Amino acid sequence: MAEVRNKQVVLRDYVVGFPKESDMNTVEGRITLKVPEGSSDVLLKNLYLSCDPYMRILMSKIDHEGFGCYTPGSPLAGLGVSKVLESGHPDYKKGDLVWGMTKWEEFSLMNHSKHASLWMDVVLASHILVSSLSTGMPGMTAYVGFFEVGSPKKGENVFISAASGAVGQLVGQFAKLTGCYVVGSAGSKEKVDLLKNKLGFDGAFNYKEESDLDATLKRYFPEGIDIYFENVGGKTLDAVLLNMRFHGRIPVCGMISQYNLAQHEGVTNLAHLIFKRIKMEGFIVNDFYHSYSKFLEFVLPHIREGKVVYVEDIAEGLENGPAALVGLYTGRNVGKQVVVVARD
Amino acid sequence: MAEVRNKQVVLRDYVVGFPKESDMNTVEGRITLKVPEGSSDVLLKNLYLSCDPYMRILMSKIDHEGFGCYTPGSPLAGLGVSKVLESGHPDYKKGDLVWGMTKWEEFSLMNHSKHASLWMDVVLASHILVSSLSTGMPGMTAYVGFFEVGSPKKGENVFISAASGAVGQLVGQFAKLTGCYVVGSAGSKEKVDLLKNKLGFDGAFNYKEESDLDATLKRYFPEGIDIYFENVGGKTLDAVLLNMRFHGRIPVCGMISQYNLAQHEGVTNLAHLIFKRIKMEGFIVNDFYHSYSKFLEFVLPHIREGKVVYVEDIAEGLENGPAALVGLYTGRNVGKQVVVVARD
Repeated sequence: MAEVRNKQVVLRDYVVGFPKESDMNTVEGRITLKVPEGSSDVLLKNLYLSCDPYMRILMSKIDHEGFGCYTPGSPLAGLGVSKVLESGHPDYKKGDLVWGMTKWEEFSLMNHSKHASLWMDVVLASHILVSSLSTGMPGMTAYVGFFEVGSPKKGENVFISAASGAVGQLVGQFAKLTGCYVVGSAGSKEKVDLLKNKLGFDGAFNYKEESDLDATLKRYFPEGIDIYFENVGGKTLDAVLLNMRFHGRIPVCGMISQYNLAQHEGVTNLAHLIFKRIKMEGFIVNDFYHSYSKFLEFVLPHIREGKVVYVEDIAEGLENGPAALVGLYTGRNVGKQVVVVARD
Repeated sequence: MAEVRNKQVVLRDYVVGFPKESDMNTVEGRITLKVPEGSSDVLLKNLYLSCDPYMRILMSKIDHEGFGCYTPGSPLAGLGVSKVLESGHPDYKKGDLVWGMTKWEEFSLMNHSKHASLWMDVVLASHILVSSLSTGMPGMTAYVGFFEVGSPKKGENVFISAASGAVGQLVGQFAKLTGCYVVGSAGSKEKVDLLKNKLGFDGAFNYKEESDLDATLKRYFPEGIDIYFENVGGKTLDAVLLNMRFHGRIPVCGMISQYNLAQHEGVTNLAHLIFKRIKMEGFIVNDFYHSYSKFLEFVLPHIREGKVVYVEDIAEGLENGPAALVGLYTGRNVGKQVVVVARD
């Protein structure tokens, strides 16, 4: 069997500070489109790749236990939607559309047993979920973070940072469906308009235009915040702690404002965890497989009825992947950032 | 009915920074030893007063919602053991020994309905709990923080800061009874010896002698920490976050290292909450009345059998109260700090 071209986005070297496009190279590798005899590998043609904030963490040399890190000279890895070209694994067959962990390249030979924990076994050909990258991993993240970690009650006050992002926009809609009052912060007028006009938030503000976040939060939440869905960390978290209500919950999904800093910003108001008996809990969606069917049961009808919508930012072509990924950390994307490698 | 002398410790003015003895005055008030006709007040003769770290918070002008603050010119308030001299309340009668919220003075007229939430209704005359100040509030705090917030499992690794303090020493013993590996930090050789030789800790260190807390924790916990019982905050918390295990829990009981600082130290490693899926939860013992009988059921047999012991630091005389209280914040006390106002 002849080899074919396999374009790849590889990490040049471990990243310090803000990632730049030049931290990645687009190279032309070669691949034989064949699953090795007797192996249980699956050969994928990658269609869509997901740009997610956590990927910055993997670009650092430090392995944050379990998060691991990328290898310089090798392609990035991340979530993607792919088509099965050939399968040595009984759960997959040629033509299946799957989503889960794959690599930033045109074709990937993935080993199911190694990546089983990453939901390669979710086939979505027949799903209404057109873009599983948008509603799949971020949706599941929003679902478990908001419902299972946040334990919302009807009428509660919910604040979401990075609210127009992949996860934030869904948390906001889930919170509205739960009967909560929902305010989000984002980094541009366009995003704020989106939150208010398209995504149904009760309020939204551009944090870059607020000189006193504490005062801003007091304006939007005169009675305080019951649930803060944490995506950014740093100064925002510090201001939020001053504005939490008794027995508030802070599901900690991400801290994107901190990932590129050599020294993270210090959070000084943690004593409010005691004063107000606040629960702050980090979570990773991978720990919640058991809730996946519950999530689908919840989200699919809402998507079908148009009660949950989704904003995506699409970059065309693998070679535009590095710019799309880097854009996450300056907030260039509006909505969930996806890279199209191929349409089918 | 004639008035008698009522020595009081009053706050001079709101405190900024470290509290000093001179922030309090010992004054001679007068009191009529009589419950007003028709009232449900209880007249107490105060015997023992409890010095607790949270009291510094009440000395600041800022009311941390629900914590409240002391009033300059008025006596401090805190937990105490008192004898009922006269009672307008059906639950108490002359001669009862009670513990709960009282004032820093010889005699107090307390209103049960106002202070009901503070366990005035726990009569201990017949209890084996000789010093209810030591095993009562701190014991209950240790119990709910460790068991209900910390959810310990046999064999887990537990780290406790301010470990020889009122709450810490009990958390350590409860953790040993649960089959955990327990290490504590404290601020002097004497306290470290106490932890290792009297209180049964597996290890203990003097944090003042450790220049690299992260390295120290890695030495005591090569496999990481499952439960960190947080009493101090600041730099210790920051080092602990680097050493937590997956799904670790941090019951946040206090942050004594921070209460005297105008600007609290910044905690920079909170992203580890995500990496390791850590739950950090502030709690206040007052929220857990419902667990009080469970606590007694657990603790009384252990005290009777000598399996839970207690180290106290006794100051004689109300006039020595300010020095005793201030000593908490420099770590002068060894064990639970109590002030004796009268022996009976």
